[in-house]
Parts: sequence; structure tokens; C-alpha cells
Amino acid sequence: SLVLSPQRRIPEEFNSFVARTNTCGELRSSHLGQEVTLCGWIQYRRQNMFLVLRDFHGLVQVIIPQEESAASVKKILCEAPVESVVQVSGTVISRPPGQENPKMPTGEIEIEVKAAELLNSCKKLPFEIKDFVKKTEALRLRYRYLDLRSSQMQYNLRLRSQMVMKMREYLCNLHGFVDIETPTLFKKTPGGAKEFVVPSREPGKFYSLPQSPQQFKQLLMVGGLDRYFQVARCYRDEGSRPDRQPEFTQIDIEMSFVDQTGIQSLIEGLLQYSWPKDKDPVVVPFPSMTFAEALSTYGTDKPDTRFGMKIVDISDVFRNTKIGFLQDVLNKPQGTIKAICIPEGAKYLQRKDIETIRKFATEQFNQEVLPVFLKANRNWNSPVAKSIMEEQRLGLIRLLEIQEEDVVLLTAGEHKETCSLLGKLRLECADLLEARGVVLRDPALFSFLWVVDFPLFLPKEENPGELESAHHPFTAPHPSDIHLLYTEPEKVRSQHYDLVLNGSEIGGGSIRIHNAELQHYVLATLLKEDVKLLSHLLQALDYGAPPHGGIALGLDRLICLITGAASIRDVIAFPKSFQGHDLMSNVPDYIPPEELKPYHIQVSRPADSE
Amino acid sequence: SLVLSPQRRIPEEFNSFVARTNTCGELRSSHLGQEVTLCGWIQYRRQNMFLVLRDFHGLVQVIIPQEESAASVKKILCEAPVESVVQVSGTVISRPPGQENPKMPTGEIEIEVKAAELLNSCKKLPFEIKDFVKKTEALRLRYRYLDLRSSQMQYNLRLRSQMVMKMREYLCNLHGFVDIETPTLFKKTPGGAKEFVVPSREPGKFYSLPQSPQQFKQLLMVGGLDRYFQVARCYRDEGSRPDRQPEFTQIDIEMSFVDQTGIQSLIEGLLQYSWPKDKDPVVVPFPSMTFAEALSTYGTDKPDTRFGMKIVDISDVFRNTKIGFLQDVLNKPQGTIKAICIPEGAKYLQRKDIETIRKFATEQFNQEVLPVFLKANRNWNSPVAKSIMEEQRLGLIRLLEIQEEDVVLLTAGEHKETCSLLGKLRLECADLLEARGVVLRDPALFSFLWVVDFPLFLPKEENPGELESAHHPFTAPHPSDIHLLYTEPEKVRSQHYDLVLNGSEIGGGSIRIHNAELQHYVLATLLKEDVKLLSHLLQALDYGAPPHGGIALGLDRLICLITGAASIRDVIAFPKSFQGHDLMSNVPDYIPPEELKPYHIQVSRPADSE
Repeated sequence: SLVLSPQRRIPEEFNSFVARTNTCGELRSSHLGQEVTLCGWIQYRRQNMFLVLRDFHGLVQVIIPQEESAASVKKILCEAPVESVVQVSGTVISRPPGQENPKMPTGEIEIEVKAAELLNSCKKLPFEIKDFVKKTEALRLRYRYLDLRSSQMQYNLRLRSQMVMKMREYLCNLHGFVDIETPTLFKKTPGGAKEFVVPSREPGKFYSLPQSPQQFKQLLMVGGLDRYFQVARCYRDEGSRPDRQPEFTQIDIEMSFVDQTGIQSLIEGLLQYSWPKDKDPVVVPFPSMTFAEALSTYGTDKPDTRFGMKIVDISDVFRNTKIGFLQDVLNKPQGTIKAICIPEGAKYLQRKDIETIRKFATEQFNQEVLPVFLKANRNWNSPVAKSIMEEQRLGLIRLLEIQEEDVVLLTAGEHKETCSLLGKLRLECADLLEARGVVLRDPALFSFLWVVDFPLFLPKEENPGELESAHHPFTAPHPSDIHLLYTEPEKVRSQHYDLVLNGSEIGGGSIRIHNAELQHYVLATLLKEDVKLLSHLLQALDYGAPPHGGIALGLDRLICLITGAASIRDVIAFPKSFQGHDLMSNVPDYIPPEELKPYHIQVSRPADSE
Repeated sequence: SLVLSPQRRIPEEFNSFVARTNTCGELRSSHLGQEVTLCGWIQYRRQNMFLVLRDFHGLVQVIIPQEESAASVKKILCEAPVESVVQVSGTVISRPPGQENPKMPTGEIEIEVKAAELLNSCKKLPFEIKDFVKKTEALRLRYRYLDLRSSQMQYNLRLRSQMVMKMREYLCNLHGFVDIETPTLFKKTPGGAKEFVVPSREPGKFYSLPQSPQQFKQLLMVGGLDRYFQVARCYRDEGSRPDRQPEFTQIDIEMSFVDQTGIQSLIEGLLQYSWPKDKDPVVVPFPSMTFAEALSTYGTDKPDTRFGMKIVDISDVFRNTKIGFLQDVLNKPQGTIKAICIPEGAKYLQRKDIETIRKFATEQFNQEVLPVFLKANRNWNSPVAKSIMEEQRLGLIRLLEIQEEDVVLLTAGEHKETCSLLGKLRLECADLLEARGVVLRDPALFSFLWVVDFPLFLPKEENPGELESAHHPFTAPHPSDIHLLYTEPEKVRSQHYDLVLNGSEIGGGSIRIHNAELQHYVLATLLKEDVKLLSHLLQALDYGAPPHGGIALGLDRLICLITGAASIRDVIAFPKSFQGHDLMSNVPDYIPPEELKPYHIQVSRPADSE
């Protein structure tokens, strides 16, 4: 059935300023005897006797009058095709005894119609507007205006609107934040390879659509605005990538005179306040985990903490192993042996699953994975079972808390690689178990986690001798590590924090550098960036910039997780396809060369651009 | 003095999540004896004895301790340059008797400081952060982050944020509107010459940044969303134009099952609800005027109704005139004589003003303007005074309600041209009178006006035999004029409405065409547009589109009028200059050719683009 409001009772005012007196979905026994006017779509018709009228709020049954005197009303209601829009006026009456429909919120009543008007007729539809009718996503996107009539899209978009409204109330009305719009026609960010360009009317000069209002939010703090937020449109040109959109929305926040704890408390309060009332309430404070711990326990910086299967270092168990490749690894300075234990894995995982897992490990990580099956007979079933000594067996049972019917996946190598591999396998196995009916991750459970103490810099992928920012160059170093900036910058931790929900990163932020000299040192000396592109920001820091920090939450992803939608495209009214196309209106499209002239650009032939 | 909140009392929560206990501006006698921690900027310092600390909320006086034991605190507070950021802790105490400052909201108290920390030092500023220091706009825009510290920019941006928040409460919480984000990377609108283009990674294909979410809002109605609103970012590339911005914001609204009256009531309620509390309340309903009446009475479709000086048709007075050029005009079929009366004009307008006016009329409108001065001696002073007969004199006095010392400006020609000219002169003379001290337009007065019954089409400027939309092609015709669409389309009035405030258009909207056939007829037959570009919209109307209508309010202009700002740049945090430049960060800027390669474009040399 159609669901309107995940958050609050429907106010009377849904009917303000319009001809209707009520929505279809709101009528109950308490309305009996009332004269009502309704506007809606014909959902279906039965034997020219009844029709079901639908609006955004729900369904209601309408009786088609059969008397001679109402012939014109009957004609309208019987001839209008399904999904035509009609306005009907009549009386709310009880359904005859035994005819009530308890599955329908309006199932106790029906409408005795006296007048009807066909507002607009509907041609034959490309698909039916019924939840059970399966449609391909391409068809849904092509006819998005019809897809939006589905109860799921109505629910998703209305929940999104209401949640954002609550966030605004919390920030603006309760905590004195100022909603400030920042430009989207801006300057190319140093290293901003993923920014769309917008030609200007000055030859060779371009605007850029920024990936976030990062510079502006910091400049607002320099400008003394104290507490800024914006539901900000951001742009990222990544070509074709699944579940990414070229434009997306973030809840963008910045505060002066704040530390990491302050931002975290603010966000915990924000989510608690705005959380949909039809979900279990959010419990605060959220647990926190260092980046190092997240990596070593979950093999990722965005752990899904709804279930166990944590990574365990079992190097000590195998110090005296006779198993050759484990021995080799442990003899190396960084060598470790790690494992995860899959509860009841022996029951649910099949040989071919294990083969897939081992192949994945070899191909993607160039690593061996050893499976160990723990059958009920306590005979371990593994390629290396015979080489595992009893003492080692007991050690493993203790460290991994192994039960009968579990499977252990074991791998050896350097810390980071083994953790990453097992982190991936942990999620892979969770999917496999759930596909076979095990409930590992409760869909009603929302498991928030702060991940903190990230490294400030990472070695550049293409040139590991140089450093790049782990997040962005404005992130402040951890106060305890500042001295290392000048000696061992690769060891400096940052004041960056990520917010993770059910294994997805839904936000990230940091305390920023507010000292111009330090910012210049990071940009010019450590990162070797062209500081000219950021001279306005460096200058601003020199004019009494307050200490400040902030965060951005990815709204599309957050709403997607809350609604349980399959894709962020299901929480966006008019999303682009994988390829960045609007399938409804054929976008992007060719433009005649004369319309490009004012911008002093011309299209390169493919040969030119190589 | 700094003003924080135009709308409501400051909540405690301005100090949530941060180290400070209070804002500088909130301290009063009621805080006496409290231990407080404040963060702020050093506004100024007197004799190393006092300093005034400023935050977004106001100013407070801080006593610099002079005791030996507090030497380090004294050193910090005496050495930090003006506009440095400091954190101080101390006790709120009474100012000594006679030292209170009644002009300062915190003027009864001061802070006895015990601890101080320099959070960030400030270099020598390009200008002082004081309201009385005059700065060029270019300098302000270059150092926008400093300009934002001014009390006026703080007031403007905070009022804007709070007013938008109230609008959201009204729409979303009180009237069931859904806040829906629509894409800004879209398709070029037919005839959308002012749309920025955004190259995609597909050779020759472009997105376009739309001037409004018009198509999307209508498609949302087809999708059954019922009530949509968005604080929408819009784009318009008009090159250099004063007081226009390449990106701007509109309050964008669309409703199903609504008529013109419904939208007007909604908007009246919206403005009344969100109106700043420090202004006189908005009185509803707003008066309404037809386009025809606005033109004939005020010479414009956006009349400033704060003052009179209305245009009066005085043709009948001169039916038997001997004045040659008036006679000639009246002998033409469309000829009229019209006038405005400028109260006390003879007192305030100088000869050279009249010369300027006459020159303007000749040069811009190719029309003669005759001034008639009414001196106290009742001798009319005019080039044609002698030719005006007594009967005509009395007729004029009666029609124009002329008083002694008034000036009448009289012109003759076709209806539309004479009205337009006198409309311009009316505003010109108002400016002249006000420059000489006459108060014509009360700055505290907000005069709203609906202008309705616009023509649906206008003759094309370049080819008057063809029609173009007066507003946009989706506007529905006036119900009484639909039959004329097929016979005399140029006579059809539309269901478009404009909202005018103090002579500025702040909004416009219409009831839309919801019938696919009618929309096709308007686009293809009357406007001769390429319907292929809009095939998705035409198709959508065919699938049960509900009757719908909407409006868009220009937020920047509205806030500009409410705050009395000199330019919309004063209500936007980071505006572009006349030339579309960001003076702070040098935008737009050159981009290396290799960064354009992924987009398959190259810059044309000036010669190429001619």
C-alpha cells in the first residue's frame, strides 16, 4: 500500500489552496457522511461498478453511480482509461458489512459519487503503475515521470525531504547555524582532475564545477560567520561508474572554535534528531575506532560492524610451524599470518565458493588463502590439516573462538595486504551466507562508527617516494604528531574523521589548518603543489583566521541506506544512468557549432584529441 | 552596532559543541559574576588597558590585567595586532559607575580577564573592519572573507538564512510540500541562448546549465508528487550586466490541482509567515492589477505603487487644440495625449532637469515631452502655455489633480510608447525629487502587487509577423480566451502572474498547459519550435498529467529589497563582479589544453570564432 509520511501525521494543510477537500488516502470511518471532493488517478476499475482512485497519499474506493440521472458521471468514470486524472465529489459512506478491506487504510469506507470531471486522459502506458510489475531500470529512467508515481519512489523522495527538513531545524533553529549558498562556478582545484569545466565568454578562460564547497566554507569561517551549513550541490566527473552520479548532494558543515569531539557530537545529535520516526532510534555516542584498528580488525577504513568475523592475527600460533610458505612469511620482517572465522561456514559454503575465494585472492591480491573446514566430527578438513599440530589447533580455537561447523580462512603476508584481502573476503562470505538464508546483517539495524586517526599523507601511487594528502591538503595534523611534520611526515596522523554506516562511508571531515605558515609548508614543501592557485586561501589564513573544522555527509548515500534502496538512483528524482545520461530527455546532446562560438571553443575530432 | 538575529532571540545553543561559554554580544548585567570563556577578534585596544572583543554576535569590553602575576596575559593581549583571534576567560563584572556605555548592548558590563590565548595573529589588513570605513566594491570583493566580517554582511546573510528557513517551515511543515532536488546538468532548452554549456566526455555532446527547473517541476507533477518546492540554483549567461549574477537562486514551487488564486494565496501566506520580525508585517491579500492597467497607469509591467504620479490620458481635453503636433497625433487612429503630474515639481526640478528629461525622451523614445510649470502666481510656464485655452486648463487641473507648484509632463503618440516613456520619466522624477530631500518612497514600506492577465504571445522583435511566448511556452491561456488561440492568438491573455515589490519583479509564474495536444499546437503551430527537443514533456502530458501551476520567486532580489542593500551582491556570500569574475580567486581562469582533452574541445583562436 502507499505510504505517505514516514515522519509525522498528515496535516490538514495538504488540501490548502486547492479544489479538493481531502486526499484519497486520509479518509476513514471518522469521515462518514462528509461531502468530499477528491482529485486523483484511476488505479483500476471493476465491472464498471467501482474504481480505485489514487493520489500521493493512498487509495480509496469510489462507487460508479448506476442511476439513469447520473449517466454523464457514469460515462466519464467508465470511459476514462486507467491512470487518467479525475476529480470526483460525493459522500463518504460505509462499505456494506463484509465488504471492508482491512489491508487498505481506507478499507472501511467508500465514496458515493455525485459529480465527476475528467481532468486529463491517459494514453496507453509503457508499463503499469503497480508495485509488483517488474520494470528494467532503463525503462524506469526513460519514463521517470511515471516511475515517480510508484509507492517506493514517493516514500523515498518524501522521506528525503522530511529528513533534510529536520536536519535544517536542528542546525538552523537549535544550534545557530547559518545556511549560506556558495558558488558552483568556481576555479579549478589543484589536482582536481574530476571537475567539469564550463567555458566562459572570455577566450580560453573556464569556470569549474567544484567537488565540494571546501574553500568557501573555510573562507566563511575567516569571515566570522562562525557556523555554516549548506545542502550543497557538488559535481564530480568520473565518467561511467556504477552508483555514482555526476552531481550529488552533501550536508556541508563548518564551525569555528571547535575540535574533533565537538563536530562528532554535533553530527550524532543531528542524525538522532532527524532520524525517521518509523526506524529504531539512533543511539549516541557512536563508537569510534582508529584507522589502524579498522584496518587490522576489518581490513578496511569503513568497517561494517553489524557482524563479527573479525580479522585475527595468528602469527604467534605458527611461530614454530613446519608449513613451508607460512614459515617463509614469518621469517620476513613484516610477515604475518591472519585469519577470519566464518561461523557455520562448513554448513553453508560450498567447495566452489572456496575455489572462487582462493582464485580471487590469487588474482586480485596475489595471495594464497587456506581454508580450514571444521566438521562436526572434529576432523579438520584442509590442504594443511595434517601439518597443523595439536598445540596450534588449540591456539587457533582460542584466538578465533572457533565452533564446530565453522570455516577458517587463513592467509599470510604483509600486514596491510593480508588485512585488505581478509576484509574483502569477510564481506564476500557474508554475502554468500545471506544468499543461503543466514541473517547476518539485520536490515533494521543501523550501525554507526567513527573512524579516526587517519594518516595525514600517503605515498603517491605513481611515485611512492612523494607524498599526497590522504584526504585533502587543508586537514590539520594530529596535535601529538606536529613535530613529525618536519622529520617523518609520513608518520603524522591527521585530525580527519570518517563516519561509517553499515560499512559505507557516509561522511568525512576534519579540523583544518588555520595557520598560514603551516598551510604553506604542507602545500609547497611536502605536497609540492603550485601555491599560486590557492594564494587567496593562504592570504585569508593570515588575516586572523579562527581555528575551525567541519564535515560533509553524503546525503544520497545516507538516504539510500536508510530507505534500503537498491541504488542511489532510487533516492534521486531525476538521476543519470551509469554512463551519465538522462535517458528521459537524451542528455548530454549535440550542440550546433554556432552555439559554441560565444564560448570560443570547438569540438576536436577524435584524431585531434589523441 | 552588530546585529545578529533579525528574527528571534538568541538560543543558548550558539555555544554548543565549542570551548566558549558565551558569545561576546550576549553578555548583560544578568551575567554578573559568571565565569565566562569567549572567543573573538580584537576590534580595538585602548592604552593597553582595555580591548574590545568582537564575534558575529556583538562587542564586549575586556580589561587587560595590569598585575605583575598576569604579565603573560597582558603580553598576549597587548601585543596581538588588531583583528587577531583570541580566547579569553574571566569574570563578568560591572563597569565602574559613570563608565557604562548605553549605546553598546553589552555596555553595562566588562570582562575581568584571568587567562588568554592567542589563537591566530593577523597581518596588516588591506582595510579596517569598521562600518564607517569606505571601501570600493572591487576591494571588498577581492578580500571578501574580510568584508564578510562587517555588521551589514553578517546581518544580510543571517536574515537570508532565517527567512529561507521560515519559508521551508511554511511549505514543508505547514502545507505538505516536498523539497526535491532537480539536476543542473541538463539539456539545452529550445531558444535557451543564455545557457552555459558543459562539455561531456562524449565527443561533441554537451550538458547545459538550465535557467530554471521548469521542465522538471512539471514532470514532478506528472509523477504525482503533488506539491514540490526547491531553493533552486539557476544559471544564466548574459555576459556583463549590472546587478545580474551568472548563478542565482529561486524559490521554486509547483502544485497540482491548483488555480491562479491558489498560488497567489500560497505566496501571500509564505511571505507573511517568513517576513522578518524587525520589519512591519506584510498585509494580505496583495492588490492585483491587470497588465493593461499597469501599462496605462504606470507605463510598466512592474509598477512601483509606493507613490502616485500616475499616467493620465488627457486626449479628450485636447480634442479641439490648436497646438499643431498634438492635433497631428490625435488625428491618427492610435494617437493619444498623456501626462503625469509631479507634485511640487516646480519647487524641486530645475531647468536642466527638464532639459535632461526632454533629451532622454527624444533620444530613447523619439518623442517630444512638454513640461508645464505651475507657479504660485498661477501663470503657467510652458513653451505651449499660451496655446492652452482656459477650458483645457481647467480640464487638466481636474484630470491630473494639479496643485500649485506642480509640474506636468505631457507627451503625445501611440498608447504603448507614451505610457512607456512617462513610466520611465515618473521614476526618473521620483529619483530627482528624492535626491533633493522629498520623501516619496518610505524605505520601511513594502508595497506588493500582483500583475495579471498578461498577453500569452508577443510579436517577435526581429520579425513582428511571428509570435513568441511572452513568458514561456508552457503557460496556459486564459480560460476565456482559449477560442482565440485558433483565430487571433495575439489577443490571447495568459494565466501568467507576476509578483512585484516596490517596482521590482520578484516572482512570476503561471498555470501550465496540461493537455498534450494544446501544448503541441502552441509549440509547433504558433511558435514554430522544434518539438523534438521537448518530446519527453509532450509525451509526459499524454500520460495523465494533472492540471498544475507554479511560481518562482527571485530570492536574491527579494532579500536585497528587504535588507535595503545597494546591490544583490550584498546579499550573496561570494558574488561575481559585473564581468562575471570572482575577484578573490581570479575566476574564470585559463586551463591547460591537456585538461580539455577528455572533453574533446579546444579553444578557438579569436580569428576562428568570427
